Amino acid sequence: MSKLVLAADLGGTNLRIAAVDENGQVVYYSRSSMPPSRSREDILQLILTLADECIENTKQIGKVSAFGIAAPAVIEHQSGTLLVAPNLPLLNGFRIADVLYETLKIPVVLENDATAAAIGEHWKGASKGYESSICLTLGTGVGGGLIINGEPLRGIDGTAGEVGHVCVEPFGVPCGCGGVGCLEQYSSATAIVRMSRELLSDYPGSTLAMLDDLTSLDVFIAGKAGDGLGLEVFRRVGFYLGVALAGLINVLNPEAIVIGGGVSRGWELFEPPMRLEVKRRAFRPPAERVKLVLAKLGDDAGIVGVARLAHFG
Amino acid sequence: MSKLVLAADLGGTNLRIAAVDENGQVVYYSRSSMPPSRSREDILQLILTLADECIENTKQIGKVSAFGIAAPAVIEHQSGTLLVAPNLPLLNGFRIADVLYETLKIPVVLENDATAAAIGEHWKGASKGYESSICLTLGTGVGGGLIINGEPLRGIDGTAGEVGHVCVEPFGVPCGCGGVGCLEQYSSATAIVRMSRELLSDYPGSTLAMLDDLTSLDVFIAGKAGDGLGLEVFRRVGFYLGVALAGLINVLNPEAIVIGGGVSRGWELFEPPMRLEVKRRAFRPPAERVKLVLAKLGDDAGIVGVARLAHFG
Repeated sequence: MSKLVLAADLGGTNLRIAAVDENGQVVYYSRSSMPPSRSREDILQLILTLADECIENTKQIGKVSAFGIAAPAVIEHQSGTLLVAPNLPLLNGFRIADVLYETLKIPVVLENDATAAAIGEHWKGASKGYESSICLTLGTGVGGGLIINGEPLRGIDGTAGEVGHVCVEPFGVPCGCGGVGCLEQYSSATAIVRMSRELLSDYPGSTLAMLDDLTSLDVFIAGKAGDGLGLEVFRRVGFYLGVALAGLINVLNPEAIVIGGGVSRGWELFEPPMRLEVKRRAFRPPAERVKLVLAKLGDDAGIVGVARLAHFG
Repeated sequence: MSKLVLAADLGGTNLRIAAVDENGQVVYYSRSSMPPSRSREDILQLILTLADECIENTKQIGKVSAFGIAAPAVIEHQSGTLLVAPNLPLLNGFRIADVLYETLKIPVVLENDATAAAIGEHWKGASKGYESSICLTLGTGVGGGLIINGEPLRGIDGTAGEVGHVCVEPFGVPCGCGGVGCLEQYSSATAIVRMSRELLSDYPGSTLAMLDDLTSLDVFIAGKAGDGLGLEVFRRVGFYLGVALAGLINVLNPEAIVIGGGVSRGWELFEPPMRLEVKRRAFRPPAERVKLVLAKLGDDAGIVGVARLAHFG
């Protein structure tokens, strides 16, 4: 019999719960779209339903002893409270760990999703074996998590790791966070679509001109096929990633930087300009030291990360 | 009898060595200009001379049991080796801790000067009581040191903390480090003089127009007296400090940020624009949490920091 834990990824649109063994292997998966109400009660009910499904279907394999939850929120790790969840505002202030413990009677641990992804990549993914790393998730926004001396760096209020909100253009594009010129405005999927639209008139022959509902994947595919606009947009993604990472390398001197999320599919297009700026802007010893690598665990990074916390604290 | 340690600040132009007790009190000071040759032998000889002076003059007070050295260099903390010392290049690769141990027969610990200052301010200065802090030294350049969970963050190669080389203008002023638009180019004493010269033609009535050998202190004095150019230069110092600090606050969520060095005399001029940018650009919980404070220990921060390391490891 294996020792198992439940690991949940509480997304804005989907809920996924897996049963994960001590080696980080997912032995059972369940998933569902989030309840339309997004209310505490309905989300809690769905969590319990999927958790039961996992427990029922892994009885032959092992006993579930703990539950880890990754959430897109500022969290208080100690008390297992969701403090601010921008995409699930009805959960703000919800002591989810306590409430789940009352029903499930197993320890429940809560973690920020980007920090969970950094823990997952450190345990079983691209930053395995590195004691200090930064994990960036380039998706709709840009998330980040830090591992320092083998431990997640959560900061004094649990808000650390917001690498997407480092400034790369002081008078640049206003950001949803209230800042200006944040990395997120130049390296997220949203930014790729915006930059493509902004530059379209400079590239009248671009294949992207014909698309109405442009996605970042369209821009990548066009760039890969040699389209000038697609290439220029991904050059900018890489340039600004390099600007931000060079600063983080100078400040933190980490062993590895892991880049994941949907936009990381465009790695082959943004990697060269990213490395160029890192080389130009970071001090030489830390720039030569740091490994810039693609994430390995994909969408499972957060689940694997909270599974580690649930197994080993 | 007190337990004493020696604590040295190995500067580019001066060497200072103090005897420091377990409370961080300096009980004896010695200082000298650095030997013109800047050779290993001459510097070593001077260190031993000043160390002897400290030991001789504190015999009545206590026994010296260890030696801490703060150096303006990339260092290897474990082995006590100076790796790269831009202002003292003949010391590159010097295993100074081993060599001093052979003569003095007391444990010798080496630390980067900016990290030492962060340790000093954390032990006895402005960040006392805060378990995570960033210490900036605004001088000829901009140095930095980090304290995370009460311990210095040195990074994997000992180069962490280079807050002065975070980018704040991606297409800005080239930096001596090889980068472009680093904070150091907008918030150091050197930057203040440069920005004053650049803006002089916009302020024909400025009292600074009459000065040939402009210093950052002149610019501060003029600004304090209401001179438009002096005020604008310090507004820019504060703006770019705020841009950089907001990013660090988002990434590290520290309890305190300590600002010292000669330029910190201009605090009253750069503080308002600095706070404005932090408030605008950093997430609200960490921005409200972080204390932005003036350093307390002045030039002694590094000495107090290595004294702590020498006393308590």
